[in-house]
Amino acid sequence: MDESIKFYTQVMKMKLLDRHKIPETGGEVAALQSEGSGQFLELNAYPGRAKKYSGGDALDHLAFEVGSVDGEMKRLNKLGYKTARALESRAKFIVGFVEDPNGIWLELYQPRAT
Amino acid sequence: MDESIKFYTQVMKMKLLDRHKIPETGGEVAALQSEGSGQFLELNAYPGRAKKYSGGDALDHLAFEVGSVDGEMKRLNKLGYKTARALESRAKFIVGFVEDPNGIWLELYQPRAT
Repeated sequence: MDESIKFYTQVMKMKLLDRHKIPETGGEVAALQSEGSGQFLELNAYPGRAKKYSGGDALDHLAFEVGSVDGEMKRLNKLGYKTARALESRAKFIVGFVEDPNGIWLELYQPRAT
Repeated sequence: MDESIKFYTQVMKMKLLDRHKIPETGGEVAALQSEGSGQFLELNAYPGRAKKYSGGDALDHLAFEVGSVDGEMKRLNKLGYKTARALESRAKFIVGFVEDPNGIWLELYQPRAT
């Protein structure tokens, strides 16, 4: 949880709105939000969990709009976060994918000037 | 894709903003948005895929704020969508979970009057 919160606040510039323990389960929950967004990212940690969280592919990735995909990917790579899929120029967007500290794919996208 | 779009537009009242084929892969992508939200839900279908999408538990669920969790769960159950986790009254929220047509967990939450 510490590492994920550090990543989403310091690297992805989200604001930490809340973090608290859940007495019933011993777990912990945190709520984060990007500036100007109405959406929350909720992080949950479950205690005493032996196995790694499995990625799956039904819910596949999270996306963040950025000013420069190229610049952000270089910044994230330099900080040690791996490229999951290289930068691509599509019709309307430039996109690239990196992995968060848990291996979750984050899409970085930038609308192309039209 | 048809079934998912029908679910998210007709049942969850999202607006379909875009839907198009991806010539390079033969896949299809759709973008949806809830009224008043700045966030997009992107649905992707990949062609010729033999195995079912796996749920995983790293990215766990999507959440929708609703006026009445009890009312919405009854409505969704009546339409054939299964309860994934029964309604619970928590300190700040009433929450309940249902499954979308692909088995993805959807949290329905309602802030409690304070």
